[in-house]
Amino acid sequence: MELYVILILCLTALSVKSENIKKTPKQGPYLPNWDSIDSRPLPGWYDQAKFGIFMHWGVYSVPAFGTEWFWHKWKADKNPRFVEFMKENYPPNFQYPDFGSQFTAEMFDANHFADVIQASGAQYVVLTSKHHEGFTNYASNFSWNWNSVDIGPSRDLVGEMAEAVRSRTDIKFGLYYSLFEWFHPLYLKDAANNFSTQDYMKMVMKPQLHEIVNKYKPHLIWSDGDWMCPDTYWESTDFLAWLFNESPVKDYVVVNDRWGQGDSCHHGGYYTCSDRYNPGVLQKHKWENAMTIDKTSWGYRRDTSYKDFLTMDEITQTLAETISCGGNMLMNFGPTHDGRIIPIFEERLRQIGAWLKVNGEGIYASHPWTSQNDTFTPGVWYTTKNTSVYAIVLDWPENNTLNLGVPVTSETTTVHMLGVSTALQWSKGSQSGVSMTIQFPVLAGPQTACDYAWVLKMDNVN
Amino acid sequence: MELYVILILCLTALSVKSENIKKTPKQGPYLPNWDSIDSRPLPGWYDQAKFGIFMHWGVYSVPAFGTEWFWHKWKADKNPRFVEFMKENYPPNFQYPDFGSQFTAEMFDANHFADVIQASGAQYVVLTSKHHEGFTNYASNFSWNWNSVDIGPSRDLVGEMAEAVRSRTDIKFGLYYSLFEWFHPLYLKDAANNFSTQDYMKMVMKPQLHEIVNKYKPHLIWSDGDWMCPDTYWESTDFLAWLFNESPVKDYVVVNDRWGQGDSCHHGGYYTCSDRYNPGVLQKHKWENAMTIDKTSWGYRRDTSYKDFLTMDEITQTLAETISCGGNMLMNFGPTHDGRIIPIFEERLRQIGAWLKVNGEGIYASHPWTSQNDTFTPGVWYTTKNTSVYAIVLDWPENNTLNLGVPVTSETTTVHMLGVSTALQWSKGSQSGVSMTIQFPVLAGPQTACDYAWVLKMDNVN
Amino acid sequence: MELYVILILCLTALSVKSENIKKTPKQGPYLPNWDSIDSRPLPGWYDQAKFGIFMHWGVYSVPAFGTEWFWHKWKADKNPRFVEFMKENYPPNFQYPDFGSQFTAEMFDANHFADVIQASGAQYVVLTSKHHEGFTNYASNFSWNWNSVDIGPSRDLVGEMAEAVRSRTDIKFGLYYSLFEWFHPLYLKDAANNFSTQDYMKMVMKPQLHEIVNKYKPHLIWSDGDWMCPDTYWESTDFLAWLFNESPVKDYVVVNDRWGQGDSCHHGGYYTCSDRYNPGVLQKHKWENAMTIDKTSWGYRRDTSYKDFLTMDEITQTLAETISCGGNMLMNFGPTHDGRIIPIFEERLRQIGAWLKVNGEGIYASHPWTSQNDTFTPGVWYTTKNTSVYAIVLDWPENNTLNLGVPVTSETTTVHMLGVSTALQWSKGSQSGVSMTIQFPVLAGPQTACDYAWVLKMDNVN
Amino acid sequence: MELYVILILCLTALSVKSENIKKTPKQGPYLPNWDSIDSRPLPGWYDQAKFGIFMHWGVYSVPAFGTEWFWHKWKADKNPRFVEFMKENYPPNFQYPDFGSQFTAEMFDANHFADVIQASGAQYVVLTSKHHEGFTNYASNFSWNWNSVDIGPSRDLVGEMAEAVRSRTDIKFGLYYSLFEWFHPLYLKDAANNFSTQDYMKMVMKPQLHEIVNKYKPHLIWSDGDWMCPDTYWESTDFLAWLFNESPVKDYVVVNDRWGQGDSCHHGGYYTCSDRYNPGVLQKHKWENAMTIDKTSWGYRRDTSYKDFLTMDEITQTLAETISCGGNMLMNFGPTHDGRIIPIFEERLRQIGAWLKVNGEGIYASHPWTSQNDTFTPGVWYTTKNTSVYAIVLDWPENNTLNLGVPVTSETTTVHMLGVSTALQWSKGSQSGVSMTIQFPVLAGPQTACDYAWVLKMDNVN
Repeated sequence: MELYVILILCLTALSVKSENIKKTPKQGPYLPNWDSIDSRPLPGWYDQAKFGIFMHWGVYSVPAFGTEWFWHKWKADKNPRFVEFMKENYPPNFQYPDFGSQFTAEMFDANHFADVIQASGAQYVVLTSKHHEGFTNYASNFSWNWNSVDIGPSRDLVGEMAEAVRSRTDIKFGLYYSLFEWFHPLYLKDAANNFSTQDYMKMVMKPQLHEIVNKYKPHLIWSDGDWMCPDTYWESTDFLAWLFNESPVKDYVVVNDRWGQGDSCHHGGYYTCSDRYNPGVLQKHKWENAMTIDKTSWGYRRDTSYKDFLTMDEITQTLAETISCGGNMLMNFGPTHDGRIIPIFEERLRQIGAWLKVNGEGIYASHPWTSQNDTFTPGVWYTTKNTSVYAIVLDWPENNTLNLGVPVTSETTTVHMLGVSTALQWSKGSQSGVSMTIQFPVLAGPQTACDYAWVLKMDNVN
Repeated sequence: MELYVILILCLTALSVKSENIKKTPKQGPYLPNWDSIDSRPLPGWYDQAKFGIFMHWGVYSVPAFGTEWFWHKWKADKNPRFVEFMKENYPPNFQYPDFGSQFTAEMFDANHFADVIQASGAQYVVLTSKHHEGFTNYASNFSWNWNSVDIGPSRDLVGEMAEAVRSRTDIKFGLYYSLFEWFHPLYLKDAANNFSTQDYMKMVMKPQLHEIVNKYKPHLIWSDGDWMCPDTYWESTDFLAWLFNESPVKDYVVVNDRWGQGDSCHHGGYYTCSDRYNPGVLQKHKWENAMTIDKTSWGYRRDTSYKDFLTMDEITQTLAETISCGGNMLMNFGPTHDGRIIPIFEERLRQIGAWLKVNGEGIYASHPWTSQNDTFTPGVWYTTKNTSVYAIVLDWPENNTLNLGVPVTSETTTVHMLGVSTALQWSKGSQSGVSMTIQFPVLAGPQTACDYAWVLKMDNVN
Repeated sequence: MELYVILILCLTALSVKSENIKKTPKQGPYLPNWDSIDSRPLPGWYDQAKFGIFMHWGVYSVPAFGTEWFWHKWKADKNPRFVEFMKENYPPNFQYPDFGSQFTAEMFDANHFADVIQASGAQYVVLTSKHHEGFTNYASNFSWNWNSVDIGPSRDLVGEMAEAVRSRTDIKFGLYYSLFEWFHPLYLKDAANNFSTQDYMKMVMKPQLHEIVNKYKPHLIWSDGDWMCPDTYWESTDFLAWLFNESPVKDYVVVNDRWGQGDSCHHGGYYTCSDRYNPGVLQKHKWENAMTIDKTSWGYRRDTSYKDFLTMDEITQTLAETISCGGNMLMNFGPTHDGRIIPIFEERLRQIGAWLKVNGEGIYASHPWTSQNDTFTPGVWYTTKNTSVYAIVLDWPENNTLNLGVPVTSETTTVHMLGVSTALQWSKGSQSGVSMTIQFPVLAGPQTACDYAWVLKMDNVN
Repeated sequence: MELYVILILCLTALSVKSENIKKTPKQGPYLPNWDSIDSRPLPGWYDQAKFGIFMHWGVYSVPAFGTEWFWHKWKADKNPRFVEFMKENYPPNFQYPDFGSQFTAEMFDANHFADVIQASGAQYVVLTSKHHEGFTNYASNFSWNWNSVDIGPSRDLVGEMAEAVRSRTDIKFGLYYSLFEWFHPLYLKDAANNFSTQDYMKMVMKPQLHEIVNKYKPHLIWSDGDWMCPDTYWESTDFLAWLFNESPVKDYVVVNDRWGQGDSCHHGGYYTCSDRYNPGVLQKHKWENAMTIDKTSWGYRRDTSYKDFLTMDEITQTLAETISCGGNMLMNFGPTHDGRIIPIFEERLRQIGAWLKVNGEGIYASHPWTSQNDTFTPGVWYTTKNTSVYAIVLDWPENNTLNLGVPVTSETTTVHMLGVSTALQWSKGSQSGVSMTIQFPVLAGPQTACDYAWVLKMDNVN
C-alpha cells in the first residue's frame, strides 16, 4: 500500500442510516461493467465483522528497512537513505532479488499467528499474496522461482495461514494482491507502450488472480497497485464478473475498490479510497480504514523507534471513529523475515483483543447511529445495535461526570458501562447543550480505567 | 548469568537501619585477603542510584534462540531443543564460532541506547564486556579474533557505549565480566587438572580484567562465572587489592560478590547472591536484584511469546520489594545481533522511566524504613528519605480507601500522593491492626490510576 | 546436455564425397514444414570452421558437483550422492533457486575468455543462454528474477561475451538454448496435459527464442531439451521459418537438429544425433561432435579427478576422427561460478591451439577425402583440401617408419610434415597392403614429437 | 613465505664432495646455543629424500586472491588491488577474520591428498600448521576460535593429513610454522616495545611449537616468519635444545634455518636462505629450494593465468639444478578453501611423479658429483650414486648427438638412458672441450622424448 496520511476530523453528524446507503442490490449474473458489478450486494459477513487484521509479508521483510517500498525507494527513487543503507551493508552488486534466499521464515508457526489474531478480536484477516515486488507467498505458476515455495522459506505461506485460520478460528481469510509490479519487465514494456499492449496482464496478473481464487478460496480480495492505468488495461470487470458469477467463492467473496485508475472510492466492493482513510463523517457506501500499528510502514522494518507505534489510545480512538462512521478497521502488522510477530505487535493485538472482549458488544455487528459523535463532549462516538445505543468514550471524564449533548432520554432510559455490572447513575442535562449527564463509577479505578476507552450502553434513548 | 528463580516473600519487617549494616569501613591500602577487602566502604553513589540497566550482548544474539547459554545448551547439555534448532537451520558442520561473523551490529547507535537508558530513569548501566562464551565486546589482546573489533561488528561496542553514556548522561558506566569460559581450552585444561594449574587465569582472565579497567575505567565491575572454583584459583583478592589501591578507578569503583566458589553473598562489594535475588526482608549488607524483562533469558532471543515479558505491574512490584529491603534493582534487556533495542524493551524502559519521573522521589537515594512492608495491607512497601516516609502502594485500594497498619500518626501528619498536588485525606485507624486510613483521590482516575503503583509521601509519621 | 557416451570406432572407409551429401539446396522463403526447412543450404562458414568451443554456464556452477544436471539428480532422481551432498553442506530447507544469489561471476572478464578461446584455434563459440534449469544468462523478460542480470552476477553474461568475441576476434558467436525446463510449472502442466496445452511454449520458450535472436544476433542456435515431445508442441518449424525468412540473422544463422522428438539426426540444420556423437564413418549430412574436456560433465564441477580430463592425445584423436568423417568438433568447458576458466581447461585450450597453429592447415576448411582412415596402419585419418591430401597420424611410428595402405603415389608425389621444413623421404610400399612407406624425421625429436599427433601433407597422391 | 625471486645461474663447478661439507657432527645433549645446536648431524633421511611437497593452506584460501599475504597486502600495505577487491566484493565492514567461517574444506579427503602426493614421487610433505595470519590448522589451545577445528572446517586438518600420509605411504610428514603473526596484538605490543617484552613468544609461539611437536610428532619443522627480531626474542635455541634432547621426535626431526634475524643461511638445520633459493653452485651445507608451481603465490589463488604455472620443463630444470648442487627441492601447491587440489596442480604432481618413476634413480639418495654441470653443453647437470655418474640432460640434443666436456671416459665406460633398455653408443670427444660424445636413441621419439629431461647413467667414468 502506498503511504498517505489522512487526518480528517469528524465535524458533523449525518442522519443517514447505513442500511440505506446501498443502491438496490441485484442478484447476478453480473456483466463485465461497473453498473452491473456495483449492483452486487456486499456479502453480509463483512459489515458485521468490523475489525480485521492486515499482514504485509514479503522479501522486504529481509532488509526490513524504512518501508515495504524498499526496492522502489532504492532503485527507482534512488532515495539517499536507502542507497546508503545498501552501500553500508552489502557488496556493491547485491540486488534486491538476492534477498530472496534470505527470506527464511524458519520460526513461522501459522497456528500461533492464528491464535494471536484470534486473541485480537479480529473477524477477518488479509494476507499479502503478492506485493508490488512481485514475490508471491505461494507457488505461483506465473512467478517461478520468485515465490516463497521455490526460494527462501520453501513453504506455502498463504496455504499454511489459510489452513490455520480456518481450522482454529471462525475468522474469515482474505488475500491482498497487487495488480502491478514495480519492475516486472512485461509490465514495464506495457507501460512503455502506454498500455496499448497487455502482456503483463495476460501472462501474470490475470492468471495469478485466478490462481489465488481457485487455490485458496478467499473470503476477501484486497486489490491494490491499480492506479497506474485504467481498468480497461487490467480487464478488472471481466475478472470480477467471473469472480461473482462462476468462481468457487462467488457467494461470499468481498472485494475492495482498487481496480483501476479512478475506480477507488467509486467502484467495486467496499471503498478504501486511500490508505488510512478515516473520513470522520458517515459514508454512503461501505468503506474500510486500512491502517498500520507502525505508523509509517506496512512491512516490518527494524528502524523503528518507540514513538512510531500507535498507542492503545490512538488505536481505540481510530476504531471508534471508523466504526461510528460506517467503516471497518483493518489493522496491519508486518511479520519478520524469520516468521515472527514481534512482541510489541503481539502486545497491541492482545490489548485490543482484551478491550474488545469487554467492549465488542458495541462494535461487532453494530450500525452507525443517527449521530456519529457527540455534540457537547468531544471524543464520544456512537453506534447502535438492536434497540441500544452505544457511546464510546475516549477520555475518562473529569470528576467522573460525563455530559452528553445528543441522546434524548426518557424515564425508562438506562445506562451501563460495559464490563461493570451495576447500572450507572444519570440525570437529564441541566446545562445548555447537555441532554444527559452520566456518573462514572468510582470503584476500582484502575481495573477499568486502564482500558483506553469506555463503552456506555444506553437503552431507551433516542 | 545463570538462571535461578528466586521467589521469597517478604514475611517480616526488620527494625535494623540500613545505615548500621556495614562494619566499620576502613580506608586502604587493602591487603589481598577478604577481611581487608571487605572492610572497604562501598562508594556512596551506588546505594543512591537504586536502579540500573543491565545489557547482555554477544554472539548468542545471532542465533537468538532460547537463552544466552545457547552454546552450552547445544554442545555441553546436548539439549534436544537446541540440537534440533541447529539441525533444522544450519549445515551439519556449522559451529558456534561461525556465528561470529554474523554478529553485525550495523544498526547500533550508542547515542540512541544512552538516550533510551536515560529515559528509563536508570542511574547506572552494566554492559557485558565478555560472557561465558569468551567473546569480548572490545579488542582484547587476550581474545584475538574472538571479539567485536576483529570479527562481526568491527566495532568497539564497549567503547562506543561508554563514550555515549558519559557524554550524554550522568549515568554511571559499569562492565560485566565472566571469569570463566565454558569452552576455553586453557580453562578446560586447568579444570581437568583440578585447578592445580592456572594457565587460563594468567593468560586470559587476569589480563582481561586489567584491560577493561585500564581501557574503560568502569564505575562498576559485575563479576560472574566464578562458581566453578575457589577464589584462590582466580586470585580474586589480588585483583581487588590492585583495583582498590592502585587502579585508575580505585576511588569510585563498585564491585559485586562473585569472586569464587562460596564468595557470593559473603565477600566482595555488594551482594548479588543469586540471579533475580529478591529476599523480601531487609538485608544487613548492600545487595542487588539483577533481573530480566524477558523472564527467562538475559540475552535477546527470538522465541519469546508475549507472556514472557514482565508487565509494568510486575516490574514496579519488584522494584518496590527490592528498594524497601535495601537492594538495588538492575533490570536487564538484550540487544539484537544487528544492534537494536526491540520496541517492547524500549516500551518497558520508557514506561518505568515515566513512572520514576513521578515517583522517583521515594526511590532514589532513599533508605529502608523501620518496616519494609505493611502489616495490614499486603502490597505496600516503605522507604524513607530525610524525614519523610514513602509507601509504595501496588494495588489501588477498593473504594479508594487504604488502611495501613504500621505508620504511627500525629496531629501534624500529612499525606501526599506523588504527582497529585492536593494533600490526601487521612484519619486514624478505627479497626484492629489499622493505624491510619487514607482516602485516595477520586478525580481523574485514569490519569494516575494507570501508573501501576502509587507512592504516598507521609510526613510526621513514625 | 544429457550424458551419453558414444564410442563407435571407425571401421570402414566410405567413398562418398562430402560435397555430394546435401540434397539440392533451395533459397527461401521457407515454409514451416521440414521439407522446406531442410532444403535450406547450411551457411558456408560453419563447415569451414571445423572447431568450436562450447560453454555451459549456469547456477549449477555454484554447487559445481557431479554434473550440470545437479538439480534433476537431486530432486527428480533423488540420486543418493546428490541428496547426501546437500544434506552434508546445506541447511535442510535450502533449495536449488537459493543458489542463484551465490552465482557471482565476480572474476568474469569476457575479454580474457575471448582471448583464450581465440588461442584455442576455435572458429566459433557457443554459450548457454539457458539450460534446463531455466536460468537465463541475460535479462529475459520471460524469466524475471531467474536470470543473471536480476540475481547473482547482476550482469548480462551473454551480452558481455558476444561483445568481447566480436570486438576482439573473428570467431562466430552462437547460443545454446534449452527448449524445455525440468521444473517450470507451466511446462510441467503442459506435460501433465500430454502436451495438449502449450502455455509454456507460448509464454516462455518461443518468446525467449525471439529474444536471443533479436538481442544477440547469434551465428548459431544450438537447440536442446527437445526430446520430451514432438515439434508440433514446440512449433519449431514456425520458429525456424521466421528465423530463416525474417529474422535479422537469416542470412548466416546455423542451427542444429534438436527441435522435437524424433527430429535429431533427421531435420533442422546440421546433425548432432547424440552427445559426443562420433560415428567414425563418413556421414551424408553435415554433423557435429559436441564433447567435453571433463569427460562426464558439461558444467564445471569441483569433484573431478585428474583422469576425468581428456588428454591431448584423446583430444587430437577425437578431432581427427571427427573432421575426417565430415563433422565439426565442438569442445566444451564449464566456467566457474565466480567467472573463471580453471587452469586445466585453459591449458587444454591453449594446447589444442598450439597444435592447430602448426597443423590447422589440414583441418580448417578441409573436406573428407575418399578414404577416412588408413587401411593398413590404424590411427591415421585423412582430409583433403585443394589438391593436397592430409594424413593425421595419431601415433609416432616405430622406427620412425610409417606404412600406409590407401594413398596411390606417383613419381611427383611429395610428403611434408606440417611444421617441418624439409620434405620427408618416402618410397612405394614393398609389402602386401602397403601403398607407400614414409620416413619420419630424426632430428629434434622432442620439438615436434610432443605434439600428440602429426599431420603429413601429401601432394600428387590419389 | 615471503616472496623473493632468486635467479642465480650456475656458472662454475666446484670440486667439493657433499660428504665433506658438514663439520664433525656431535651427539647430544645439545646446549641452547648455536655452536651446540649446529653440531647436531642432520638425520640421514632428509638428504636422501631430495624431493618434497609443500602445502600452504589457510584462511587466505577463501579470498584466494593475489597471494597468501592477502591480509597484509590489504590492511598493512593498503595495496590498491587488494583494497579494490574487497570493496568490489564485500560489505564495507567485512574483515579478514570474517573469512574464517567460509573456510569450509567440505571436499577435503586426506587420503586422496596422500595418494596424489605419493604419485608425485615426493619423499616428504610439509603442511602449514599456521601461517602469518595466525590461523592454526589444528585445535591450538593458544589460538582459540581462530583455528580449523573451532571455526570453518570443523576439522583437524593437520591431524587428518598426518594420519593419511602415515597410514598409506612411507612419506615423511613435516609441519611449517610461522613464528610471528602479522596482526597478533601481543606480538604487535612486543614489537612496539622493541622486543623487550616477550608476551607473544611466551603465550603463543613457544606453547604452539610444543603443541605441534607433541601432538603430531613431525619429521620436519619448517620455521618461518623469524626475520623481524633476533632469536633471543624467540628463544629459538631453547626450543631446539628441547626438541633435540627431550622431545618425542628428537631422533629423527629435521629443522630448517629460520630461527631469528640473521640466522637464515647460518644456523639451525638445513639452509633455506631465501624463498626459491637456487644458488646454482655446490653448497657446503645441506640446503633446500622451496618453490611454488604457481610462480608467484604459495597459497591457492583464483586470479592466475595459464602462464603463472611452471611448465614441466621448468620444474625438471629446477630439480636438476637443485639436486646437483646438493639441495632438496620442496615444491609447493595451495589447496582450495573447499579442500581440493585443483587439476593443474594434480597434473603437475603426477607428471613429475611419472618422470621420477623413470628417472628417480639419478635423484633419490644421490650425491653431488665432482662437477655440478657440464662445461661444454649447457643444461646438463650431474649427480652420483654408488659408482655411477648421472647426467640430467634438459634439452634433447640436436641431431641426437650430445657432447659433454666433463666426464673422463675409459674403455669400460658404459652409458644408458634411464627407461631405455639398450645401451647408448658413445665415443671419445673429437673436439676441443669435449671429453665424450653420446648418441641419443632414434627409436620411438615421443615415448621418451616427452619426458622434459633425460637422465644418462654413466658407469666407469671419472
